Amino acid sequence: MTQSLAIIGASGYTGAELIRLLATHPSFEIRALAANSKAGQPLAAVFPHLRHLALPDLVTWEEIDFAGIDLCFCALPHKTSQEVIAQLPRHLKIVDLSADFRLRDPADYQKWYGNPHAAPDMQKEAVYGLTEFYRDDIAAARLVAGTGCNAATGQYILRPLISAGVIDLDEIILDLACGVSGAGRSLKENLLHAELSEGTNAYSVGGTHRHLGEFDQEFSALAGRPVQIQFTPHLAPFNRGILATAYLRGDAAAVHGALKAAYADEPFLTVLPMGETPSTHHVRGSNFCHIGVVADRLAGRCIVVAALDNLTKGSSGQALQNANLMLGVEETAGLMLAPCFP
Amino acid sequence: MTQSLAIIGASGYTGAELIRLLATHPSFEIRALAANSKAGQPLAAVFPHLRHLALPDLVTWEEIDFAGIDLCFCALPHKTSQEVIAQLPRHLKIVDLSADFRLRDPADYQKWYGNPHAAPDMQKEAVYGLTEFYRDDIAAARLVAGTGCNAATGQYILRPLISAGVIDLDEIILDLACGVSGAGRSLKENLLHAELSEGTNAYSVGGTHRHLGEFDQEFSALAGRPVQIQFTPHLAPFNRGILATAYLRGDAAAVHGALKAAYADEPFLTVLPMGETPSTHHVRGSNFCHIGVVADRLAGRCIVVAALDNLTKGSSGQALQNANLMLGVEETAGLMLAPCFP
Amino acid sequence: MTQSLAIIGASGYTGAELIRLLATHPSFEIRALAANSKAGQPLAAVFPHLRHLALPDLVTWEEIDFAGIDLCFCALPHKTSQEVIAQLPRHLKIVDLSADFRLRDPADYQKWYGNPHAAPDMQKEAVYGLTEFYRDDIAAARLVAGTGCNAATGQYILRPLISAGVIDLDEIILDLACGVSGAGRSLKENLLHAELSEGTNAYSVGGTHRHLGEFDQEFSALAGRPVQIQFTPHLAPFNRGILATAYLRGDAAAVHGALKAAYADEPFLTVLPMGETPSTHHVRGSNFCHIGVVADRLAGRCIVVAALDNLTKGSSGQALQNANLMLGVEETAGLMLAPCFP
Amino acid sequence: MTQSLAIIGASGYTGAELIRLLATHPSFEIRALAANSKAGQPLAAVFPHLRHLALPDLVTWEEIDFAGIDLCFCALPHKTSQEVIAQLPRHLKIVDLSADFRLRDPADYQKWYGNPHAAPDMQKEAVYGLTEFYRDDIAAARLVAGTGCNAATGQYILRPLISAGVIDLDEIILDLACGVSGAGRSLKENLLHAELSEGTNAYSVGGTHRHLGEFDQEFSALAGRPVQIQFTPHLAPFNRGILATAYLRGDAAAVHGALKAAYADEPFLTVLPMGETPSTHHVRGSNFCHIGVVADRLAGRCIVVAALDNLTKGSSGQALQNANLMLGVEETAGLMLAPCFP
Repeated sequence: MTQSLAIIGASGYTGAELIRLLATHPSFEIRALAANSKAGQPLAAVFPHLRHLALPDLVTWEEIDFAGIDLCFCALPHKTSQEVIAQLPRHLKIVDLSADFRLRDPADYQKWYGNPHAAPDMQKEAVYGLTEFYRDDIAAARLVAGTGCNAATGQYILRPLISAGVIDLDEIILDLACGVSGAGRSLKENLLHAELSEGTNAYSVGGTHRHLGEFDQEFSALAGRPVQIQFTPHLAPFNRGILATAYLRGDAAAVHGALKAAYADEPFLTVLPMGETPSTHHVRGSNFCHIGVVADRLAGRCIVVAALDNLTKGSSGQALQNANLMLGVEETAGLMLAPCFP
Repeated sequence: MTQSLAIIGASGYTGAELIRLLATHPSFEIRALAANSKAGQPLAAVFPHLRHLALPDLVTWEEIDFAGIDLCFCALPHKTSQEVIAQLPRHLKIVDLSADFRLRDPADYQKWYGNPHAAPDMQKEAVYGLTEFYRDDIAAARLVAGTGCNAATGQYILRPLISAGVIDLDEIILDLACGVSGAGRSLKENLLHAELSEGTNAYSVGGTHRHLGEFDQEFSALAGRPVQIQFTPHLAPFNRGILATAYLRGDAAAVHGALKAAYADEPFLTVLPMGETPSTHHVRGSNFCHIGVVADRLAGRCIVVAALDNLTKGSSGQALQNANLMLGVEETAGLMLAPCFP
Repeated sequence: MTQSLAIIGASGYTGAELIRLLATHPSFEIRALAANSKAGQPLAAVFPHLRHLALPDLVTWEEIDFAGIDLCFCALPHKTSQEVIAQLPRHLKIVDLSADFRLRDPADYQKWYGNPHAAPDMQKEAVYGLTEFYRDDIAAARLVAGTGCNAATGQYILRPLISAGVIDLDEIILDLACGVSGAGRSLKENLLHAELSEGTNAYSVGGTHRHLGEFDQEFSALAGRPVQIQFTPHLAPFNRGILATAYLRGDAAAVHGALKAAYADEPFLTVLPMGETPSTHHVRGSNFCHIGVVADRLAGRCIVVAALDNLTKGSSGQALQNANLMLGVEETAGLMLAPCFP
Repeated sequence: MTQSLAIIGASGYTGAELIRLLATHPSFEIRALAANSKAGQPLAAVFPHLRHLALPDLVTWEEIDFAGIDLCFCALPHKTSQEVIAQLPRHLKIVDLSADFRLRDPADYQKWYGNPHAAPDMQKEAVYGLTEFYRDDIAAARLVAGTGCNAATGQYILRPLISAGVIDLDEIILDLACGVSGAGRSLKENLLHAELSEGTNAYSVGGTHRHLGEFDQEFSALAGRPVQIQFTPHLAPFNRGILATAYLRGDAAAVHGALKAAYADEPFLTVLPMGETPSTHHVRGSNFCHIGVVADRLAGRCIVVAALDNLTKGSSGQALQNANLMLGVEETAGLMLAPCFP
């Protein structure tokens, strides 16, 4: 049975990635695409790579008739997203890809995002969308908050280790390189090809990146005590991919064991053999995440490296995985595309 | 009903691309993977991006039991391919991705490739694999010869125009930029990232590129008289994609009309509205080909630009499309993946 | 003796490139840097790669005291440039890098740029800045108009051939790939790394690129009759570099000979041995231009390929070369930097 | 007065970079270029970007007449280098760019490089080539051992901090991204454009990278006690540049102060204002190193980020800086080229 979907925010990269994935989904149909700034245009004018698909033209989200829609993806910028979602009909299941419903405490939201939350009541019903760890809640949810892409990567490394008690919670460093699509389709000088290619730089250094709000919330809840990690993202000259390198105190074998155990049955998470580490090249364009563990030469320390595609597993692939759960279809539907290499 | 396939030459890029496409094919199963230089290894050791797939380990092609195999892709280098294919059992359908069976006249093969053909009898039964133009022959064939990736791109522009008689056959210039995967997984200095990125150069300048053998054969046959085009390929710093720019004498509207008519019902070929031209960005990782026509300021001249992914529509996607025809399944099966952008 | 320079438009790429080149110039000193939108900032805030240089802060051009300035580079957008230059003091020598004074006939300017020329009188005294062909005029000029970067590349191929009468003037096709810095520091979606990297596309197809105005003017003047070429530029995913491929009717040996003769004594132009073609990789970051000639397999036709760096030889390097002539110093001063490879 | 130089190992990237820098050096002349595998060829055949230079053809190093040579750069692979250097005449000053004379203790050499040292006596006279910290010794040396490029970057961050006693010596983590030219001109699959572009991966994870031998030696000597850091390099898809991110325990202001003090008079090292961090884009192609310090949100911790060009400041620029000292010319001669951006 085909179920009907809408996408609000279809002119950004996560919107486009949703459509790419839905193009081969066996039972979902896209019934409406909204992008207020480009309403009236065919999608092919905004994303020519999707021109082969028979899709509705872009409209404003207010124009959508949600009567026949089962689920709506909301791929708007944060702040806008909460304002729009607050006005959507209550029958609608929603997967939000913005940051707006990730932080359970509205004070945390205000701290990290700078503005008071406009829909604190809805925040209460939102489920954090890291599929593998909130699967049952997601399946039952009306509103799911997609995670940050960096936040997802770090949690895939750290959640099993915190749960298993195999690492020192006060000595966690997460160093990360993120591809440029993570910054979205924004017109900024530092995102121009001429400025960004052929080099790299750190940003949000010193514990100021907003995804730390998610790390703090999730790791502290998991540990039952405050956990604050160090986190430095870098902007790297490729379009897709996140590589996270975690410096940890703990026994490498125990760390590897905890990850293997946690992901043994997960379709999208692969723990590499001990001593091997992954590459973003090998998950590009896919919903897979590869994780590797190496013991450091210094006793009691280890390094864990994870790779995923920020647009897929880090964002739109996760969103579709959650939508599959919410609509009762096979969790992996539409998501088994192999990585695109070279 | 599932049909069984083998791939010989699974450690190169076209082999990997075949496996990527077959990963989501509804009715084909990979039963054997051969790569003589890497026999004994799991495929994940050679192509870690395919590690999520349950696939047989690499073997030598001689080790394959072809008894239960319906069709074999042969993704070997030219010359090697003909030697191997000559030894394969006769019940097997074969899609060859090398250059070995593209040129009907063994003398042409020797002229362009430098060695006498080792299987001239098999050459006779080979069908040229440009799907849209040899569809019926391919469906009935035992052996299909995949086209060159540049050769496919140029023919998508030129065949309908030659057939329709709308261009001057003596004034055809094809200028082309090809991504680096077109050169295969060869260890050559000029293919190193440090040498190839951040710049471009022409190669095989002056009418020496081997794909001219295909152009000469096909265009002359189509026109019923000798046709020789000018063709200059360039090596460009991206992994996937061919952009061909053709300089033609003819009326732009007639040219556009001939292309529109030729491809009206083709699932993978899109002719853009008059005056628009395509980009390789928008076909990357897919089996689609976009074509655009623009009138030049000089009367009676026009430019036609085509974009496709050399590994997909230019090679492995074409091969799968042909295999679908040969095995009687839906021609588009496994091939409707949307392009991967950004 | 040190001479004093100012740069107006110092916050764009050609401005930055001028400063990079002047950093090691033996006898020029930068006395003022203007960028009206960023006035008040240190240059290092706008171009951190120049932070090691002791340079004046950015000001508005109106704030510059031109009394002690010998020569001013004007690296503003076209249209703005003519308005500013019209107001500069008459004692000042000026090298304009915009398009504003390239076309001798104001009607041509209006045709290609869409607005009436604001300083047609000054246009009369402007000298076209293609150094090797206007050397004496440039040395005596007060106002020199830098050429388009594509226009320079095409003329380095074609001028000697037109002069020598060795090619058919009605059959000239110039196909060209230009790196992204050619589009300047503009915030446009198609210049984002995520959109531009990993692919290519043609633009201004069909004879609509503004540099055709320069080609028409220069080639017609040279030939003493109207000459109109076909010209298609492509946007390619590298930061610096232009590769032009010209398809010509003429004897390859005669063509090669004419180029060799024309550039025998030129410090920045190298004609490769017959049959070799250049790569933009090997001129990156330098003022050199490499040119190669190959005979086509079709009798009487040949291909000429030229490579230069659009920011250096195509723009700011040319501007400095002209400034050297205008101020009576060694023409190559500050310009002998070797290309930056890899 | 011109002094005469030779380069052995002129066909690799560090050899080419030496020649690029020497091209504008005011008082050094290249008298011999050796590359045994390419002897007999003109340099332009191996590095076409240097074709404008009047240079001797490549010879074998045995063919060089060292009689008139003042100083020889040796840019050979490790192990080969020590064998060749042991045979060079004693009058010759030598700057070695390999790893062969970096580790003072031959046992350390064997531990990290796997083979016994072939010239342990010469090792004794070698001076470690990190210019800013061994300046006087280098000026007086006959044999200077160029540092590892990663080793240089890490030491520019850490030496002043260890000397000033402002960080915890047992809690040093150095995470680093290195551009592909750091791997040299080797024909390896993972260095192909198709495999390396558009992604990143860690390598030598867990404390196995050879440059740790240098870190251990230098930091322990400096601290007067054993110091062992954690170090993870990543291979990143750009040609030039190293970005090192250090996670440290110490007061950020004290750390910033120690770096400012250490580099106050250094021509090539710039400490950014507190809170700013550098980018490799802004040192590309130059001998400059930019360093920035940020306090972490966790009290008592800070992050220091350094950027340099691995081929220039990390290798050949350093080598030339040392040669300048050894031959008594201005230390910055030939090295003030501004970075090449964009």
